[in-house]
Amino acid sequence: MDEDVRRLSAERLQRLGEELFVACGAPPADAALVAAELVDASLMGLESHGVTRYVMYVEEVLAGRIRPGAPVRVVRQTANLAVVDCGLNFGAVAASRMVEIACAKAQAAGIAYVVSRHCHHVGRLGGWVQKVAERGLFGLAVANSSKHGHFVVPWGGREGRLATNPLAFAAPTSGRPVVLDMSTSMIAEGKIRVLLHAGQQVPPGRVQDADGRPTTDPQRFYGPPRGTILPLGGELGYKGFGLALLVEILGSVLAGEPLTDDFRYINGLGLLAIDPKPLCGRRRFRSLMDQLCAYITSCPPAPGHEEVTMPGELDFRTKEQRQRDGIPLPATTCRQLEAVAAKVGLEVHL
Amino acid sequence: MDEDVRRLSAERLQRLGEELFVACGAPPADAALVAAELVDASLMGLESHGVTRYVMYVEEVLAGRIRPGAPVRVVRQTANLAVVDCGLNFGAVAASRMVEIACAKAQAAGIAYVVSRHCHHVGRLGGWVQKVAERGLFGLAVANSSKHGHFVVPWGGREGRLATNPLAFAAPTSGRPVVLDMSTSMIAEGKIRVLLHAGQQVPPGRVQDADGRPTTDPQRFYGPPRGTILPLGGELGYKGFGLALLVEILGSVLAGEPLTDDFRYINGLGLLAIDPKPLCGRRRFRSLMDQLCAYITSCPPAPGHEEVTMPGELDFRTKEQRQRDGIPLPATTCRQLEAVAAKVGLEVHL
Repeated sequence: MDEDVRRLSAERLQRLGEELFVACGAPPADAALVAAELVDASLMGLESHGVTRYVMYVEEVLAGRIRPGAPVRVVRQTANLAVVDCGLNFGAVAASRMVEIACAKAQAAGIAYVVSRHCHHVGRLGGWVQKVAERGLFGLAVANSSKHGHFVVPWGGREGRLATNPLAFAAPTSGRPVVLDMSTSMIAEGKIRVLLHAGQQVPPGRVQDADGRPTTDPQRFYGPPRGTILPLGGELGYKGFGLALLVEILGSVLAGEPLTDDFRYINGLGLLAIDPKPLCGRRRFRSLMDQLCAYITSCPPAPGHEEVTMPGELDFRTKEQRQRDGIPLPATTCRQLEAVAAKVGLEVHL
Repeated sequence: MDEDVRRLSAERLQRLGEELFVACGAPPADAALVAAELVDASLMGLESHGVTRYVMYVEEVLAGRIRPGAPVRVVRQTANLAVVDCGLNFGAVAASRMVEIACAKAQAAGIAYVVSRHCHHVGRLGGWVQKVAERGLFGLAVANSSKHGHFVVPWGGREGRLATNPLAFAAPTSGRPVVLDMSTSMIAEGKIRVLLHAGQQVPPGRVQDADGRPTTDPQRFYGPPRGTILPLGGELGYKGFGLALLVEILGSVLAGEPLTDDFRYINGLGLLAIDPKPLCGRRRFRSLMDQLCAYITSCPPAPGHEEVTMPGELDFRTKEQRQRDGIPLPATTCRQLEAVAAKVGLEVHL
């Protein structure tokens, strides 16, 4: 695209986020935490979960669907399990608290599983398991969504019954952690919207029209009537479907929550943490992870590929580059951020 | 294929398995357990993990790589974690013991994770999580393999670094449990061998030749030099690769085991069990699972599909049918079974 792109420093965007969320009524520490998560996603090149979300978050606060400062409460717990009611505070505030709880329990008891209720959009799922790995533990996370986000068909179906239901895991190494963060579907709805606006086609095998027929036309997808997204796997899509169900169960069913359609951006966050200490020792775990990484990345690349990297590696490299060179933001995004700032009484020029 | 196919009752094949494994030196209860798992897979139509494996298991015993009656010992444990040394006993004997340990710990402590060392081929992975679900718990299992089974490339690579690394989960409902059992690759090596013998092509997008170029020719796959299998996902194969790493970590790294190439059929089995009781109650969990199943299966089918079913449902239907009509076995398989029986001094006519 030829659109004007500005480069802004992570510090500038962090400050903007803090100002916006404080103006929305968030305690300063919470505002900083939410902004830091979104800036981190932007640094890593994951635009859809980056600072463009400032706009949506502020609008959700103004609509009363995010409740800044709301208590995040443990409503049920044992030594290694917890159900956390997030009270519709910012998802990042809730997820951060859930990471604390899961890690504390796993460090004390070896393993812990924590699941949310009333949790708003958690942002980059990989960020939460990365924090678990940074403490030397293994972390696995899943996030489902309320019915509003049910764009994805079950295998063989033609109506949406699931969201893109991402799952993520992270494990420590001597260097950067291994961080996988993936949806269990063929494409995210946000990416189809980008293709629609750009007048481009969706790659084959990703979406269906409302009759359940394959299409590559974003307009056939959006309808009305609206089409659907296929589960990960192509001809093996029953696998992606099964993984989406796994996310559904670990992210929501075990919390005792029925399927909801009340809110647009509710995530059911499930978080598992395992401390390698009682199993093989943290040092040995890290060392075996190093061996695994060396074995995998020693694989010579196939034609068309330059190297074999561990999950997350390319994101970390993008982060280093953007920390030096700034985060590229389309001018339209800058204008949207300025407009939403004005809504909460801030004068911002990006 | 026009090959002569015989139909044998589950009871007949169970008895055969018991006789074979007792003749190999297995205690009668262990022999019955191993046979029952393989017969169950055959009943469900999962031939590659069914009674055809009798042949391989007996040969592994004769080669000293399965050790009937070897103690299965917990070598490290806490209230909710365990590392289990399976002593190269039959994988099913070890996995069955690991299910007992995981369920007992989860029922006492809410959640448990158990991981193996020196575990032989565990058979149908879904069978172990199904047993967890039959007790009202949620179960997740993974199985990696020794280097011998590393047919699968990491994303973008051209040498095998991973096995087909299956994962499985099961959850209880009021009816049959939901049971997903899937590899994280595009095809199993065994299926390519079947296509080779039948003179058929591999579907596109499944395998590469030794240079990392796409091929549909089983002969190009087998070489020499040998080709490789692609991870699940096609153009999104970094997802299948990431899932295979998840299996690697939960199935082996956390047990403190380095990558091995000593034995052909070693599985690293990782098993997670969660008791819904302290989270939302077992009855509520089951009821919410019923709601989820109803919501999913109410989805109208896409063109070319007859219905939307939950994972495992079609296998259970095949089992019902085969319990009535018998298990179809090619005459060549029957002859192989008779031959291996003769090796342990049994005269068998199928």
